[in-house]
Amino acid sequence: MASDPHDDPRIGDISEGTVLREILARTAPASHALIGPGDDAALVAAPSGTVVATADTLVHGPDFRLAWSSGYDLGWKAAAVNLADVAAMGATPTALLVSLAVPRDTRLSFVAAMADGFREACAALAPGCAVVGGDLTVSDLLMIAVTALGDLGGRPAVTRAGARPGDVVALAGELGAAAAGLQVLFRRFRDGDTPVPVDRTVLDADQRRALDTQLRPAPPIGLGPVAAAAGASALMDVSDGLALDASRLAEASGVTIDLDGAVLDALAFGGDRARALAGGEDHGLLAAFPSDALPPGFRRIGAVRERGAESLLVDGAPVAHAGWDPYRDWDGVAS
Amino acid sequence: MASDPHDDPRIGDISEGTVLREILARTAPASHALIGPGDDAALVAAPSGTVVATADTLVHGPDFRLAWSSGYDLGWKAAAVNLADVAAMGATPTALLVSLAVPRDTRLSFVAAMADGFREACAALAPGCAVVGGDLTVSDLLMIAVTALGDLGGRPAVTRAGARPGDVVALAGELGAAAAGLQVLFRRFRDGDTPVPVDRTVLDADQRRALDTQLRPAPPIGLGPVAAAAGASALMDVSDGLALDASRLAEASGVTIDLDGAVLDALAFGGDRARALAGGEDHGLLAAFPSDALPPGFRRIGAVRERGAESLLVDGAPVAHAGWDPYRDWDGVAS
Repeated sequence: MASDPHDDPRIGDISEGTVLREILARTAPASHALIGPGDDAALVAAPSGTVVATADTLVHGPDFRLAWSSGYDLGWKAAAVNLADVAAMGATPTALLVSLAVPRDTRLSFVAAMADGFREACAALAPGCAVVGGDLTVSDLLMIAVTALGDLGGRPAVTRAGARPGDVVALAGELGAAAAGLQVLFRRFRDGDTPVPVDRTVLDADQRRALDTQLRPAPPIGLGPVAAAAGASALMDVSDGLALDASRLAEASGVTIDLDGAVLDALAFGGDRARALAGGEDHGLLAAFPSDALPPGFRRIGAVRERGAESLLVDGAPVAHAGWDPYRDWDGVAS
Repeated sequence: MASDPHDDPRIGDISEGTVLREILARTAPASHALIGPGDDAALVAAPSGTVVATADTLVHGPDFRLAWSSGYDLGWKAAAVNLADVAAMGATPTALLVSLAVPRDTRLSFVAAMADGFREACAALAPGCAVVGGDLTVSDLLMIAVTALGDLGGRPAVTRAGARPGDVVALAGELGAAAAGLQVLFRRFRDGDTPVPVDRTVLDADQRRALDTQLRPAPPIGLGPVAAAAGASALMDVSDGLALDASRLAEASGVTIDLDGAVLDALAFGGDRARALAGGEDHGLLAAFPSDALPPGFRRIGAVRERGAESLLVDGAPVAHAGWDPYRDWDGVAS
């Protein structure tokens, strides 16, 4: 990042072409892209004859604060949360399209760092996937709208609706760490209601790990196709909290899910079961499998029962469906 | 639209689920969607084994003003501009993903009307295509980020790079009408710098047509695959003005395009050649064909020459590359 502002112009002072060149210079080739950025549209291989497609947006305010997230963090997270939705169908991500709306006073280096975050998240989480197109506009508000595409490798998609009584419920990925990271931000890095920059040196190792999970989540993308190949009967991304998302899977499948409290306690970040059930943004993969032969990376967390009065139980008892509601005030969520 | 505000709640006062149900009730089934909204991702048929993908965003301020555009208009336009980019590769649109960021005080009826606009634009311009997924978030700023997918029907994609000397340059769709509509808005429906609601009764038939093209463009989507099947050597969507976009096609192809001034005068909305060359948002299709046998809907507007000093000529003479620059101030564009 240049220290001389003349070397790091504001987006509003330079041409769209200059910004795009900076972004595209940092975009890796997608191995599935037959035509990449620069034409009216991209062309992406869809060898299965179908394409998985999902969209998710990060908006300044409800989804992140610039005092806490760098451009690199935002590019990484915007990629990761969309890749997770592709994996949650059992597919391998093939391409991202990124629509950026950025304030005029944004530095070019910030947008360049965001492009770096997209590239490196794809390289780390979904090799071969990359940004193949998108859109750039100026706006009073920073917003990152991403569409991710994926290929099923010839297998059927794994929806939320296939869990059957007797199946094992399993999880891959973090449980409660992202919510713990959000708590660190709200409790440690605010001046009144105003976010202030993060000083990692005041945090212990667990707090730093929680913060990393919140700011740069690393969902187990490669385990989506693994779960599908292993015969998962249902699969989804845990983005809004395990309790809410597990109850959604149960509702879609017409079953009841009974989670094992002792296992939750063992897996929950910091041993905090309530936060693990309610806290969002971990982007782990929740699956049902018809047998106990779980693929590596998945841990048994419960069982699928015949549909009862409740969609979700823990140790056979009802549990409140608390979870992430994007319409609740962000500050309220963390309080 | 309900007159009692109790029947038409603000988005911030109701749950995400309520808003989504209202939207999904107005979403038509996409004939290419194997899995539609409701799971982690949609699954869309890609019979050619490839998928065309493009993204474009409308942001309140630079791209539209709420005093001038209804929710229906915005849904329609957001669909149309993305469908046009799919058509510009020679493909048939198969699906849209829509990421909506809406202020909390937005009425539910406004979002519902937007969903109607998406549905009816697809039905009118690209039958079988529909919204298959997306994302909903609250934001201080209204923003509509759309990704469109398409299928090539087994044909190769038609890029901007294939025009060859001797080819005919042809256009399908409007020329300058959308820019004329923007002029009507800026000249007739502002109080100082503040946009005021449109009163169509004070406009003549030409002004109303121009306004309709600006607010609800109807690009010739079906002619994209027609051009491809007829052997078009290059194809693109005219979104930033004919002069700028034709010069882009010429640069990509390594040729010079020489437009016919008399034809431009005849085709330009209101006979205004300068506005037709510089004005954006018509979303017509610009094509090069290796012979004079143009498919129905395309009109010859020039010829492809060996690359000379300029990428674009009109009647053999250089022309300024004026065109739509999304980074220029919106008000400035229309002045």
